[in-house]
Amino acid sequence: IFSTLETKAITDMIEEALGADIVAKPDFALYSVGGRVLPHLTFANLVQLRQPTLLGRLGGRFLVPPPTVLESKSPEKALQPSVFAGECWAFQGDHGQLGIQLSRRITVTDVTIEHVDHRAALDIGSAPRHIEIWRLTEPGPRRSAPPQSSSFEMHPPPPQHQNSKETGKTVPLSSIKGIWRNGNAPVPGATLLTSFEYQIKNNTDGNVKRVQTFSIPERKQDEISTGIVVRVLSNWGHAKHTCLYRVRVHGLEQ
Amino acid sequence: IFSTLETKAITDMIEEALGADIVAKPDFALYSVGGRVLPHLTFANLVQLRQPTLLGRLGGRFLVPPPTVLESKSPEKALQPSVFAGECWAFQGDHGQLGIQLSRRITVTDVTIEHVDHRAALDIGSAPRHIEIWRLTEPGPRRSAPPQSSSFEMHPPPPQHQNSKETGKTVPLSSIKGIWRNGNAPVPGATLLTSFEYQIKNNTDGNVKRVQTFSIPERKQDEISTGIVVRVLSNWGHAKHTCLYRVRVHGLEQ
Amino acid sequence: IFSTLETKAITDMIEEALGADIVAKPDFALYSVGGRVLPHLTFANLVQLRQPTLLGRLGGRFLVPPPTVLESKSPEKALQPSVFAGECWAFQGDHGQLGIQLSRRITVTDVTIEHVDHRAALDIGSAPRHIEIWRLTEPGPRRSAPPQSSSFEMHPPPPQHQNSKETGKTVPLSSIKGIWRNGNAPVPGATLLTSFEYQIKNNTDGNVKRVQTFSIPERKQDEISTGIVVRVLSNWGHAKHTCLYRVRVHGLEQ
Ligand SMILES: [K+]
Ligand SMILES: [K+]
Ligand SMILES: [K+]
Repeated sequence: IFSTLETKAITDMIEEALGADIVAKPDFALYSVGGRVLPHLTFANLVQLRQPTLLGRLGGRFLVPPPTVLESKSPEKALQPSVFAGECWAFQGDHGQLGIQLSRRITVTDVTIEHVDHRAALDIGSAPRHIEIWRLTEPGPRRSAPPQSSSFEMHPPPPQHQNSKETGKTVPLSSIKGIWRNGNAPVPGATLLTSFEYQIKNNTDGNVKRVQTFSIPERKQDEISTGIVVRVLSNWGHAKHTCLYRVRVHGLEQ
Repeated sequence: IFSTLETKAITDMIEEALGADIVAKPDFALYSVGGRVLPHLTFANLVQLRQPTLLGRLGGRFLVPPPTVLESKSPEKALQPSVFAGECWAFQGDHGQLGIQLSRRITVTDVTIEHVDHRAALDIGSAPRHIEIWRLTEPGPRRSAPPQSSSFEMHPPPPQHQNSKETGKTVPLSSIKGIWRNGNAPVPGATLLTSFEYQIKNNTDGNVKRVQTFSIPERKQDEISTGIVVRVLSNWGHAKHTCLYRVRVHGLEQ
Repeated sequence: IFSTLETKAITDMIEEALGADIVAKPDFALYSVGGRVLPHLTFANLVQLRQPTLLGRLGGRFLVPPPTVLESKSPEKALQPSVFAGECWAFQGDHGQLGIQLSRRITVTDVTIEHVDHRAALDIGSAPRHIEIWRLTEPGPRRSAPPQSSSFEMHPPPPQHQNSKETGKTVPLSSIKGIWRNGNAPVPGATLLTSFEYQIKNNTDGNVKRVQTFSIPERKQDEISTGIVVRVLSNWGHAKHTCLYRVRVHGLEQ
């Protein structure tokens, strides 16, 4: 159907697209180059694990390998490139906040959000919808001690809990929503860079893509970031949980 | 060669194909969404590991990292998406059975089998050929104790063996073949959904693909599955072993 | 824009390119089929890790997950297929040597080097430039004891060091360069198969690709290899470190 030259051109485009990870921009949140989750700025209600089955309790030769589902739902998943179904940071409800320490000091110019393709997704309703991006100008926690009382379930849970009870606690969402909807900064000094809506499902023109890049307004490109905070404020309808597959942060190095 | 519009169209197709994992259907066997191997329904002769080399026995600064080949050959590999050469469930001979607990209760409509591309394969003869798919309607084992005598080597081996001797035992294949070729169900109540032949190597028309989807006959789409059993009955000629790279299970949620 | 037939042809090309891992040749260095790093022939100055931050030292609920950057920089990375930014063997300076035990005894016909796409790279200057490929005809070390004095920092470090001090030692590069530039073989009996320059950045014609395959001269295809040594002699300008993302070794089985 295609000539040799055309075939070569298409093959080159495929190779380019593969190599450039579609977006073709450096990702300063990527785990493998040093992006890290900031636990003190990351919270959400944990996803309730499946109850251990009878099968799971039988030992010996019939022991089912312990499920690593919780592990695969750690917030680090959102900094790692694989986006096969389930390879996301999953949390209960439709509100979650992810703090990210960037690998370099940059002026943030764009942020990319991606979700599993809607055709391969088990529940497209768990895709994030309304999202806010906040700029951090200091990487570490401002406090030297844990807060005395917190209305949030921290994620990941403290080490002593990790191998015991792993079902999530129900935290009153109203209190989280109250804080977030008032436009309160995640930490003093943080600046709201942008807020946007992640779209799902291709329309008939095929213009809505799985990988969506959102620009930061130029007037907000006025200060260096050491990290960002991603706030998911709603999802596409799933009653129980939301999945954040990948966040990329693009920008100019300082 | 191509116009801007054509180039964009091709790039969109690439992005779509990448995102949709080619098949563009949810995979209810996928490990990252909760698909799991059912050990009591999974068996095959283990692949004999390479003998430890002299190099492997030298310690200190010259210690070669212990080979993780066996680990990478675990049956979970068949539920994980990477299909680079070697990322498969490998077993001795040409007979193996894999029990899979699905992530949801579904009516199974299709099953996808894939192998490493024949051009990148070291031994295309290790590809599976004749395959049976059985439906399970209960996830757990029906028996509360291990069988008193078994003609199969269970996979994975019992924990006490895992760090000691890892070479496979030779089990008389004739007994396994005898059972399987009689059309015996893997467990009472299991139903044979379909049997088919996985094809290797593209023919001159390029119509044979690495990723092959097989439909379940409509009259067999009459009951809900909690799992399936995949039986490999032959391979494409390799005298010693067979590799199952990936099994996907598609269907309608109940 | 495209007809149904054209669209199908493009989709087939995408699927083929994906499956064949671009090069469409077996890779006998691939870790998942049994390729292994030969530690006694692998050395470079280790990459200096980031100093532990104050944040990193705070425990309890604020504990930042321990960075796995060093781990992700192990030489095995060069035998593994993922080439997202940072998934490479990184070493200080621009000189490093990687010994590879092949999965099979082959006559080496080609070697493929790849780097992260320049558009997604944080520092394209860290790409390797001048590279030598040496043939090994025996897999193990010729000596039964560690050398009494070495001018190289071995990589990986001896086990007793792995969990203590992980910052790299500064080794006088002049001594390494002196040895390498004299054309000295890495071990007695090793043969120089080829030397070449890995190119970065596409030119205006788009002819320079991320994945580059280099042929071994036919007259050097005269003996069986059990392994190879890759020597990186320079990089594309980064003052501090060099990253080797992936080495593939192609050939004919014996
Ligand atoms: K991910
Ligand atoms: K696999
Ligand atoms: K790599």
